[in-house]
Amino acid sequence: MTRRTSGQIRAEQLVDTCGTLLAAVRDRAPLVQCVTNTVVTGFTANVLLALGAVPAMVDIPEEAGAFAGVADGVLLNLGTPSAEQRAAMREAAASARGAGTPWVLDPVAIGSLPVRTALAHDLAAMTPTVVRANASETLALTSGSGGGRGVEATDGPEAALIAARPFARDRGIVVAVSGPTDLVTDGERTIAVANGHPLLTRVTGAGCALGAVVAAFCASAGDRSALEAATAAHVVVGIAAERAAARSAGPGSFAVQLLDALDAVDQQEVADRARISVLAGTEAA
Amino acid sequence: MTRRTSGQIRAEQLVDTCGTLLAAVRDRAPLVQCVTNTVVTGFTANVLLALGAVPAMVDIPEEAGAFAGVADGVLLNLGTPSAEQRAAMREAAASARGAGTPWVLDPVAIGSLPVRTALAHDLAAMTPTVVRANASETLALTSGSGGGRGVEATDGPEAALIAARPFARDRGIVVAVSGPTDLVTDGERTIAVANGHPLLTRVTGAGCALGAVVAAFCASAGDRSALEAATAAHVVVGIAAERAAARSAGPGSFAVQLLDALDAVDQQEVADRARISVLAGTEAA
Amino acid sequence: MTRRTSGQIRAEQLVDTCGTLLAAVRDRAPLVQCVTNTVVTGFTANVLLALGAVPAMVDIPEEAGAFAGVADGVLLNLGTPSAEQRAAMREAAASARGAGTPWVLDPVAIGSLPVRTALAHDLAAMTPTVVRANASETLALTSGSGGGRGVEATDGPEAALIAARPFARDRGIVVAVSGPTDLVTDGERTIAVANGHPLLTRVTGAGCALGAVVAAFCASAGDRSALEAATAAHVVVGIAAERAAARSAGPGSFAVQLLDALDAVDQQEVADRARISVLAGTEAA
Repeated sequence: MTRRTSGQIRAEQLVDTCGTLLAAVRDRAPLVQCVTNTVVTGFTANVLLALGAVPAMVDIPEEAGAFAGVADGVLLNLGTPSAEQRAAMREAAASARGAGTPWVLDPVAIGSLPVRTALAHDLAAMTPTVVRANASETLALTSGSGGGRGVEATDGPEAALIAARPFARDRGIVVAVSGPTDLVTDGERTIAVANGHPLLTRVTGAGCALGAVVAAFCASAGDRSALEAATAAHVVVGIAAERAAARSAGPGSFAVQLLDALDAVDQQEVADRARISVLAGTEAA
Repeated sequence: MTRRTSGQIRAEQLVDTCGTLLAAVRDRAPLVQCVTNTVVTGFTANVLLALGAVPAMVDIPEEAGAFAGVADGVLLNLGTPSAEQRAAMREAAASARGAGTPWVLDPVAIGSLPVRTALAHDLAAMTPTVVRANASETLALTSGSGGGRGVEATDGPEAALIAARPFARDRGIVVAVSGPTDLVTDGERTIAVANGHPLLTRVTGAGCALGAVVAAFCASAGDRSALEAATAAHVVVGIAAERAAARSAGPGSFAVQLLDALDAVDQQEVADRARISVLAGTEAA
Repeated sequence: MTRRTSGQIRAEQLVDTCGTLLAAVRDRAPLVQCVTNTVVTGFTANVLLALGAVPAMVDIPEEAGAFAGVADGVLLNLGTPSAEQRAAMREAAASARGAGTPWVLDPVAIGSLPVRTALAHDLAAMTPTVVRANASETLALTSGSGGGRGVEATDGPEAALIAARPFARDRGIVVAVSGPTDLVTDGERTIAVANGHPLLTRVTGAGCALGAVVAAFCASAGDRSALEAATAAHVVVGIAAERAAARSAGPGSFAVQLLDALDAVDQQEVADRARISVLAGTEAA
């Protein structure tokens, strides 16, 4: 057996790492720049603040690039990609890449919509640290096929994973496919995260905000890998969602409780509730 | 008595139809494209999700038109009409009209504001399925007079109805005038909906989100008329507001409870609580 | 002792004035135009509505200027200054100035970000009624130094005050520096407001919405000074925050409770809870 540089990974260790990284986010309070859609800006900022990170929605040309050089992490979300935001995203991606700032690409609703699809392919070629997407978006980005009728995934996460693994491996990036079970892969190793709650799909921006949380975790990861950071982000948001759902009477109260839960969740709760598995054939190579 | 194609309408039957259409929205989960203002995008999306519909805020040129051809319903709301949104709205209206997709026009704050007023008249000429507006906006659109100092209605709904009826009849569309009692007319028949609660006026975007709900109901109406669909939307939101107000301590908790209520309201509650009347002289012709 | 026109000010009287001005806002229901960032538009509108004011987010060129002439107060917030918003802000500032409409400048995150920093200096030269900012932004505007890494203040309010006082006095404006203790100065007199709660920093848009509230109070101030109006705005929001924090389990529920509290707070609660002091050497001159 050849042990790769990237190394093997064990679920129990990864649970510990998730808790450690949550503490690291709270310690560092990373500054996360978000160029994101107008639907979810407020909620995304509130999710970051509840978690202990610091949001900054700097999204215009001539500022986005400069800011990406000083931010700790960057999210580029293609939900409502106005001309100014498109230019800002190109600036920010180039600047983040140059500065070594971790950045996350969320290719919202790509597939048949031409403007954002072209942009997503361009940005994906600039080596994002993590791509976070649903299954349809992942397929559209990685194989050119797929693409739902908007923001809802119409393809299965397993099909998306088949295309995502070589895409991630070839580029040296991580792809996180959201779904009932989230799948996070660096192309060699794939982690399944079973935390979460169906109410996450009844609130706008839960997935978009998760992209920002991934950026916050990558920004605080130190010598941990982006695979671990992205996994931890999904675990923490998933656990917060479970906690929130138990205190909610519907989607409105759930969104409020989710923010309270992101503030309250701690390392012990992560250790107790994390539901992570390493997919067969990927724990060692 | 000559029975018109559009036919007579009875309040009791309409109450049944409202419940039936609510179930249809939940069954179909219609994809509702919203080109709407930056103040209310998140709330509008959450209202649609709580109700059981699927929002998609595709609002840029070169995408909005294509998307309107595959969406089940479209909302065009003029609250913050940037140049890109204005172009997107023209695309979307043309595409929706061509595809037979029901679409709703919400001419926010038209009257004295020149850019949106001109746009509203252009869009109104493209035969929206429903115009949803307050009394001042309705007067500004239908008679060129009126127009409040912004988003608050300063004219009475009855005055608006006088202008709205011929406007609706001549174009074959529905006009829904929001107020303490909502008035929904196709020019021949006018329905008064007394459901609702004053707290709706203390939360931003309640009216704007109602426009999106009208689009969701029109998208799920099957062989029911747009008059019935628009009425049902007003009844369901009004009942949800009553339910929410009973559980609220102020406008902040009301907005949260409204989302929970839109998720919880069912056909039986609609049957029990709907307060609909057919205006005299309009139940038969 | 030469008594200046602006006159001396006593903390006890100012507490009374705060309550009186809260009642005046509720009576007048001022129309407050906000050209503000996409992150906080909805929350800002809800804060104004909860307080009893009427928000209108008219933020496009060819409309913003006309509207500023009929609005009762105007907020210009530089959080996400798109090209259209920048043009709209220049229009609105000129129109507000010409019409004598009180207007508030919130120079969000200026300092190192070039586009907004240049705009802020231009707008500041147009004599806003009040500048509301954190310490870093205040320093960047008034002395050219300072400027945080985004929206968080990295400088102390006392340092900001030293630069803000001559800036305010020379221009005849008020500068309000937000911090653990808010400092409001017209250059001659400086008021410290100790109301508030740390949870305000865990919710996006609390500061931005405060700028809109300052505009609402200035719009309702009658013959009271902008110094008094701005102080009252800070006191009322601070007291509402204290009330909300006592009913909250985290930042999500706090934001909801803050809106309920802004609706509920009354003159008596202002009288009981206001924590105002007049800084030494500034109560008389």
